[in-house]
Amino acid sequence: MAETSMAALAGLFRAHLQDLDWASLRAYSQNLHPADIAEAMHLLEPEEKVELVRALDTSVRAEVVSLANDSSLESLLDGLENNELAEIVEELPADDAADLLGEMDRTDADAVLRLVRDVSAQEEVQELLAYAEDSAGGIMDTDFVAVRESAGRDEIVTALRARDGEDDDLHELYVVDDHNRLVGKLPLLRVLLARDNAAMRGSIQRDLVRVDAEMDQEQVAGLFAKYDLVEAPVVGPQGRLLGRITVDDVIDVIEDEASEDLAMMAGTREEEIGSTSVFRISRSRFRWLLLGMVGGMVAAFIMGFFEADFAQVPAVYFFVPVITAMGGNIGIQSSTVVVRALATREVDVRQIGSQVFREIRVAILNATLLIPFLFGITWAWRHNLPLAILVGLSMLVVFLYSALVGALVPMLLARRGIDPAIATGPFITTSNDIIGVCIYLGFVSLAVRWVA
Amino acid sequence: MAETSMAALAGLFRAHLQDLDWASLRAYSQNLHPADIAEAMHLLEPEEKVELVRALDTSVRAEVVSLANDSSLESLLDGLENNELAEIVEELPADDAADLLGEMDRTDADAVLRLVRDVSAQEEVQELLAYAEDSAGGIMDTDFVAVRESAGRDEIVTALRARDGEDDDLHELYVVDDHNRLVGKLPLLRVLLARDNAAMRGSIQRDLVRVDAEMDQEQVAGLFAKYDLVEAPVVGPQGRLLGRITVDDVIDVIEDEASEDLAMMAGTREEEIGSTSVFRISRSRFRWLLLGMVGGMVAAFIMGFFEADFAQVPAVYFFVPVITAMGGNIGIQSSTVVVRALATREVDVRQIGSQVFREIRVAILNATLLIPFLFGITWAWRHNLPLAILVGLSMLVVFLYSALVGALVPMLLARRGIDPAIATGPFITTSNDIIGVCIYLGFVSLAVRWVA
Repeated sequence: MAETSMAALAGLFRAHLQDLDWASLRAYSQNLHPADIAEAMHLLEPEEKVELVRALDTSVRAEVVSLANDSSLESLLDGLENNELAEIVEELPADDAADLLGEMDRTDADAVLRLVRDVSAQEEVQELLAYAEDSAGGIMDTDFVAVRESAGRDEIVTALRARDGEDDDLHELYVVDDHNRLVGKLPLLRVLLARDNAAMRGSIQRDLVRVDAEMDQEQVAGLFAKYDLVEAPVVGPQGRLLGRITVDDVIDVIEDEASEDLAMMAGTREEEIGSTSVFRISRSRFRWLLLGMVGGMVAAFIMGFFEADFAQVPAVYFFVPVITAMGGNIGIQSSTVVVRALATREVDVRQIGSQVFREIRVAILNATLLIPFLFGITWAWRHNLPLAILVGLSMLVVFLYSALVGALVPMLLARRGIDPAIATGPFITTSNDIIGVCIYLGFVSLAVRWVA
Repeated sequence: MAETSMAALAGLFRAHLQDLDWASLRAYSQNLHPADIAEAMHLLEPEEKVELVRALDTSVRAEVVSLANDSSLESLLDGLENNELAEIVEELPADDAADLLGEMDRTDADAVLRLVRDVSAQEEVQELLAYAEDSAGGIMDTDFVAVRESAGRDEIVTALRARDGEDDDLHELYVVDDHNRLVGKLPLLRVLLARDNAAMRGSIQRDLVRVDAEMDQEQVAGLFAKYDLVEAPVVGPQGRLLGRITVDDVIDVIEDEASEDLAMMAGTREEEIGSTSVFRISRSRFRWLLLGMVGGMVAAFIMGFFEADFAQVPAVYFFVPVITAMGGNIGIQSSTVVVRALATREVDVRQIGSQVFREIRVAILNATLLIPFLFGITWAWRHNLPLAILVGLSMLVVFLYSALVGALVPMLLARRGIDPAIATGPFITTSNDIIGVCIYLGFVSLAVRWVA
């Protein structure tokens, strides 16, 4: 549905809720896609979101909750009672249930899980919760179909029919041995097209991408992107089949990882995107603002250190903002491009030399175009040739230094296995501010008699 | 394969190439996944990449080229002859062929396409090239299977067998009417499980997500993410079925769009990520560096404007970097979060009020924590209470102003249908620098006799 119809749908929900007309609301929403209901819900007020979810039919309700964005989920987890949440958990596939519980505090999640009546569902969710949230085990689902290698087509069709009533999101079967160890996979297309059981067995793909349950979700996403996968089996110790990861969950991972990189480069955390909690958001940003403030004060102390030198030529200070701005801009350009090239596997951690060389050449080219302009303006404005020369020369050093640091820092972090996006943005702008001020005032102080 | 084995594989390729041992290289690479060959190729030197591709078997060669990252592709398009490229184009599925030609200049692409001998392949690629690169038509492939509503299972199996030899990347059939208009889709699972043809026809899904060929690829990706799709049919005028989009292409779109946002926020363009052309990279960054330099000079002129006021108290200038740094940091935090929340549909363009309110509250909370610290340090250092008060007061205004601008600018751009990531980063840091300097020096100049 288009954007405008989402607003119309939200308005309609609101009108029904205000009229306390639950029956019409429930009947109407039966014909909607849960993803559309969820999207319209995002436009409602927090209390309305809770009322809407309460009004929906049980099966629709669970799906809408599992599709809620972060800010809606915050409202729903606040507003719904534990027994209502337990009903939703019971209705959801185990992986979505585990995700929902993963959004709560540990004690709240335990309380909700204890209220789930279906013991086998409870256990299944508990098992999934044992995996780290950002591991393959944390994003896998257990809704797969495994068959023995000896199975014939009739047996397979029977097994699939027994599972039926579920959605159509099944494209391949997994083949396991007697100890539930993964042997291979069998695309449904092969089952459908095989002329006999022998031909079908011959089309089992034994050489397939398998994911270890402990693998980091970012690596999993890398495998999907690299091998163009639609789903992949997840295995545990001894290669035992535990679950499968489907591409829709991988898309969420890719979006989250990109959000995380973008947020970290900007000096905050992905968790705050879409959040409405002012405390949570402030906490995400605070440390980087503190870093920036401390960095700014260090720059102030450095300017103070040269106070006596420039008492006669305060015009020296006028060029500090252009120096710090360019150091920041160049550092952010270099580091962002390197961080993203690493994340999308365009560049390998080993290619430090070529990345640094690339950034230095780009800096020289841009410096050649921009610094004469800076020099000219400075000279024309202040009629002070020595000052114009020193501003231009400092800027050249800042160009080179910032490009070098911008490329080197994320490459070195990545080489040590640290996420290169972490703190790269605020760290680089802050350190480039300080070092830019040192370079510029250091140069001018060396030649202060010439400038004054 | 793991990172280390990629380096080993690249080393092995290199050794074979140096020994001019094409036969072993070809034999060895037959047993590798083309995605692994491509990844190892990325570690080679430009000329080695070209030699490697030349050494590969025709079918493998085409797939490796279609999997090359941007920097490898740059080397290959430079190094390979037009007739070699034409052979690769002929070997590729039409959509990958069109993508490859799309990376070349228009005239080069035409020259290569004229050398393709298979006329029907030529025409198919030509048709795909007519669609905008970032439209649904530009990312669709034409390798789908369409059946009539009247088709029975035997007919369907025959049609699928006729197509066989192709890969297993087929999960649903499209159902069309006599005029090739899309009627619905039929998952393979339904074909396999239906007890008879009537039951199979009954499971045709008529209410499905269809994509218009002109739709922007970012919207297409939004549909896939929202409805958890694995593939979607692409339709033209009168709802005629033209092709399909598969989720692996959507993953590329999602990664590219995230790269584009990240690059634009940093003041460059996605095209440069992984590029080795210093001129292309410089061109991507130049305008934002120019903007930053002009902004920095405007800040200098503003400081010059107040020159006479502060001749006796140059210490006033020491706090300019901390003012500009905080304006930049806060502006980038707010704007990045808003841009990303819009991109991932966490926030709707209509929610301007709530976003701005959210940012202002966060700014007040962080200001409450940080500004007393700034005030205290300034007072303790300079023993100048009026200056400390003015620095703190200016900083409060900068916090509020930067948060407001950071949230408002991307929301207003998005509301007008402009990509909110464009120029948000450099524009906001630059304008916040200038306005921060105005606010701070304006305040101090009003009270200059009190400070001096």
